[in-house]
Amino acid sequence: MRRVRVRDDAGSIRNGEWIDDEIVLNTGTYDPSALTILPPVEPTKIVCVGLNYADHAAEEDMSIPDRPMLFLKPPNTISSHGDTVVLPRNKDEVEFEAEIGIVIGTQCRNVDETDAMDVVAGFTCVDDLSNRDDQRVEQNWVRGKAFDNAAPIGPVVAGPEHVPEDARVQLAVNGEKRQSSSRSEWIFSLEELVSEVTQYMTLERGDIISTGTPAGVGPLEDGDTVEVTVEGVGTLEHTVKRE
Amino acid sequence: MRRVRVRDDAGSIRNGEWIDDEIVLNTGTYDPSALTILPPVEPTKIVCVGLNYADHAAEEDMSIPDRPMLFLKPPNTISSHGDTVVLPRNKDEVEFEAEIGIVIGTQCRNVDETDAMDVVAGFTCVDDLSNRDDQRVEQNWVRGKAFDNAAPIGPVVAGPEHVPEDARVQLAVNGEKRQSSSRSEWIFSLEELVSEVTQYMTLERGDIISTGTPAGVGPLEDGDTVEVTVEGVGTLEHTVKRE
Repeated sequence: MRRVRVRDDAGSIRNGEWIDDEIVLNTGTYDPSALTILPPVEPTKIVCVGLNYADHAAEEDMSIPDRPMLFLKPPNTISSHGDTVVLPRNKDEVEFEAEIGIVIGTQCRNVDETDAMDVVAGFTCVDDLSNRDDQRVEQNWVRGKAFDNAAPIGPVVAGPEHVPEDARVQLAVNGEKRQSSSRSEWIFSLEELVSEVTQYMTLERGDIISTGTPAGVGPLEDGDTVEVTVEGVGTLEHTVKRE
Repeated sequence: MRRVRVRDDAGSIRNGEWIDDEIVLNTGTYDPSALTILPPVEPTKIVCVGLNYADHAAEEDMSIPDRPMLFLKPPNTISSHGDTVVLPRNKDEVEFEAEIGIVIGTQCRNVDETDAMDVVAGFTCVDDLSNRDDQRVEQNWVRGKAFDNAAPIGPVVAGPEHVPEDARVQLAVNGEKRQSSSRSEWIFSLEELVSEVTQYMTLERGDIISTGTPAGVGPLEDGDTVEVTVEGVGTLEHTVKRE
């Protein structure tokens, strides 16, 4: 099942299912372009993994960590399929980062690796937008990673049955492919990530672990359209603009 | 006004006022010990300032930054007056840090310094509990600062009329004074902090900017009682235990 949250013409927020090219609500079947697609979940936090593909670690000139490198995106970072993200003012380099998001299905803490899939509702697409001007000079990546709308997510939460262990993750800017890799390239597995994060913190239903980006990241310009595609989930599309 | 949130004997969550040694609800006047004191607000995020007192920067052997050093505590970190915080497992050094929390009263973004007080509801006490074992080796302080219940807050939100510009902030462990300083020692002012943070992110009603800790931080042991006192706010008390 691919779960979607929408606002319909009457202003009602409805849960539905994205089946092939249509969205099925309890009020009928719609073309996705006729609805406002909302973030499929409302996370209390996104726990991001900094380096989880060897090729991206190499391009950033960083060594592969011996445990997951973590950082946080708070709720103000959430934006959705179809949104226009206003980039932070006066920054030269704001970059895209295609990621697979693990969506948590139930409140959990101290999850063993063998039980990790029990707490996973499914997967979504994430663009981990990154303001490099600040990220490069900050201890904690707050200005760099936690600016408003720095985490477009969606368009759906796809159940694990849709997303194979070698699911592809890809990103295109204005239709041109820029990133392409696979879940099978992760340094740390889903089970290791869920177990490690929940040793320290409770994850709530709807929280997301964003699993890092592969090589190919690059800067965005005013008016660019970004498409993040995760096999089995579909395509998250958003644009960016400078103020 | 010193606003408090409690759960009463019947299980109802009520808002009230802490006046002298009593809590006034719309159902009557109570001794604080007869009620469960809840966090006075429910933040979507706490934005913490890493180094905002010169004496603490010196004891940590860090230089004074030219702009506020920021990090994040997500909602899982919240705990309250009277709570027993379970420290993260297998860590040698978990330390207390007394802080004055600025409580935001209204959703805001891009706030000018001259308008900063317009978005401030008041002040609360914060203990910025810090797991140094991990903090010292992490790029982003997630395991170090964002573990469950790492942010006791409360017991009230005191309006700005109660908290002078030179308000004292103090901390005692098991009744012994360990930290003592004043808001007048801040490197960055309330106005500078509100303006800087909201250049990047929207703050919501109930969010907190925690304004850094003075010198004197130190480790906690199983069973310790911590009291954070901010002049005009009162005293936040909590205990800690090891699993």
